[in-house]
Amino acid sequence: MSPHPASKDITEQVEQVLTEFLRARAKEFPDAADLLEEIGRVAGSGGKRLRPAFCVWGYRAAGGKDDESIARIAASLELLHTFAIIHDDVMDQSPLRRGEPTTFRRLSGTPAVRRDRDRFGESAAILVGDLAMALADELWWSSGFVGAERDDALALYHDMRTEVIGGQYLDLLAAARGRATPEETRRISVLKSGRYTVERPLLIGAALAGASVPVREALAAFGAPLGEAFQLRDDVLGAFGDPSVTGKDADGDLREGKQTLLVALARSAADEAQSEVIENRLGAGDLDAAGAEELRTVFRDTGALRDVLVSIEDLAAAARAALGSAPIPSEAAAALAGLAEYVAVRTV
Amino acid sequence: MSPHPASKDITEQVEQVLTEFLRARAKEFPDAADLLEEIGRVAGSGGKRLRPAFCVWGYRAAGGKDDESIARIAASLELLHTFAIIHDDVMDQSPLRRGEPTTFRRLSGTPAVRRDRDRFGESAAILVGDLAMALADELWWSSGFVGAERDDALALYHDMRTEVIGGQYLDLLAAARGRATPEETRRISVLKSGRYTVERPLLIGAALAGASVPVREALAAFGAPLGEAFQLRDDVLGAFGDPSVTGKDADGDLREGKQTLLVALARSAADEAQSEVIENRLGAGDLDAAGAEELRTVFRDTGALRDVLVSIEDLAAAARAALGSAPIPSEAAAALAGLAEYVAVRTV
Repeated sequence: MSPHPASKDITEQVEQVLTEFLRARAKEFPDAADLLEEIGRVAGSGGKRLRPAFCVWGYRAAGGKDDESIARIAASLELLHTFAIIHDDVMDQSPLRRGEPTTFRRLSGTPAVRRDRDRFGESAAILVGDLAMALADELWWSSGFVGAERDDALALYHDMRTEVIGGQYLDLLAAARGRATPEETRRISVLKSGRYTVERPLLIGAALAGASVPVREALAAFGAPLGEAFQLRDDVLGAFGDPSVTGKDADGDLREGKQTLLVALARSAADEAQSEVIENRLGAGDLDAAGAEELRTVFRDTGALRDVLVSIEDLAAAARAALGSAPIPSEAAAALAGLAEYVAVRTV
Repeated sequence: MSPHPASKDITEQVEQVLTEFLRARAKEFPDAADLLEEIGRVAGSGGKRLRPAFCVWGYRAAGGKDDESIARIAASLELLHTFAIIHDDVMDQSPLRRGEPTTFRRLSGTPAVRRDRDRFGESAAILVGDLAMALADELWWSSGFVGAERDDALALYHDMRTEVIGGQYLDLLAAARGRATPEETRRISVLKSGRYTVERPLLIGAALAGASVPVREALAAFGAPLGEAFQLRDDVLGAFGDPSVTGKDADGDLREGKQTLLVALARSAADEAQSEVIENRLGAGDLDAAGAEELRTVFRDTGALRDVLVSIEDLAAAARAALGSAPIPSEAAAALAGLAEYVAVRTV
């Protein structure tokens, strides 16, 4: 799926920065060439480029003028996301991402490997992710931004990294425990996706342009609910999405036993028979298509699906309302509105 | 095992910086408290603190005056090492480190976890390592160093990260391929340990003090061979070390099929029967004590062990010679000589 039109030029700039940066690194470090090539493949495999888009539009909303510097920071966010998805796919044992085998699956097929292919693939994927995180950080140092604006934005970036790692941990823990309250699932959504995908990238961009407090507050008021809507949409797609569109394996979230708001609401509204379906099917390693369909029926019949869809719409409405009164240029407001629509109703 | 006397004051400063830094982060990010606690446990579990020691002595050798800033950079190197060992232990499936269960083993026992304990432990350990790397980088930003010295040192740090990740990848690949030439094993040693443990930390410290070219060259001429000696010693300890002293599981390197110089030299000097022992035993998942002893016999009888020990001594001698003519204060030269002795003859 192509990125939203409001991020088209950003996508092109980010791709150019990444291509040149990774190529230069591979020339300097031929020993890491395989790892760098895989980073380039994942980063170039058609992501939605949401984080770069929110970062650049946050910058523009605060009056920042486009140049190579902001493209480097946007590229850094995309590299950080590359790190996150490579490691997430190892943790979740996801076979597919964007319609292609995931990094650990792909590297398990490295031709020279004679033994322990699966272990090798996972280990090499851990290293690919590690290097992507390290390189994301390098782009900050060479971005060209300096002084108070840079330090201010960087503090947000550091907080975001800690949050997204902490959120992923809570997500794993909830799945391994086998239950989570609706409040716990919302906290996970905020940390793992809300701030990471929308609010922080926006505020990082705004900080780099030296945004005023009212602009930052308006962007936060827009970004926080939209980010949560993004994660709830992700949860719905994880349970109901069409794998030929999402590019992920069908029912992976259900098999992994992800504890989402959808699951938490279904659990709290379930009768005895429905509770049993949740207990027996959710997180079952051998979950088949029929079992997944039983779970979806419970999500529908308990009203959980409807409630989550209503939440997404309410959150998106709150985001739109914040945007309506934001003291930012109309071009930026229009672009952010377009991105909000895309985030809340996406099928990918 | 306690750190060498030449790094005692450094160790204390680094521990203080890390304790305060991790505590402040845990207060700000309660969601990541479990991860931060585990980072603190590993970082405080009695490592040799070699990288901080070489960093601070490189700084002092170039005329740097001790303050909190250099302690923060030394602490950053220790946190980076914490990241490296946590991820390495997942990759190598090592049960023990410094006499204690490794992070992935420990976290697999998290009480709330009801399912997939092993998978949970590995995933959580990946996240603990990720966070350690992110935090290592944060310490650079808040170190207090600025300007050309900082940027110069940071470029070395960035190169070092890429090198150590690339070296770990080549190491994995060699083990998975089941063979490596002596030259390949030396390249792995240089990347994985030589530069990472000695040369780069020294030069990072020197750069932070604005060292002259002759001082840098002298430190590099000392650090490069000593770093390689460190890795060769590590390889010898991996095959012949006493687990009650090394704190690692006995024969882990042999079971993992690590392709070290010891192995490469034994392979190239082996007769048919000895070759068969290497082929059948090295990297065998079910290697027992008798099989490991057979391998050790081959390492001894082929002369590979003796050759590696000679190499270690030659490299240490080259390091000492470089130190003898280095234009650095005698106190620094004495401390580095002490560290060199410790590195080359250590039993841990």
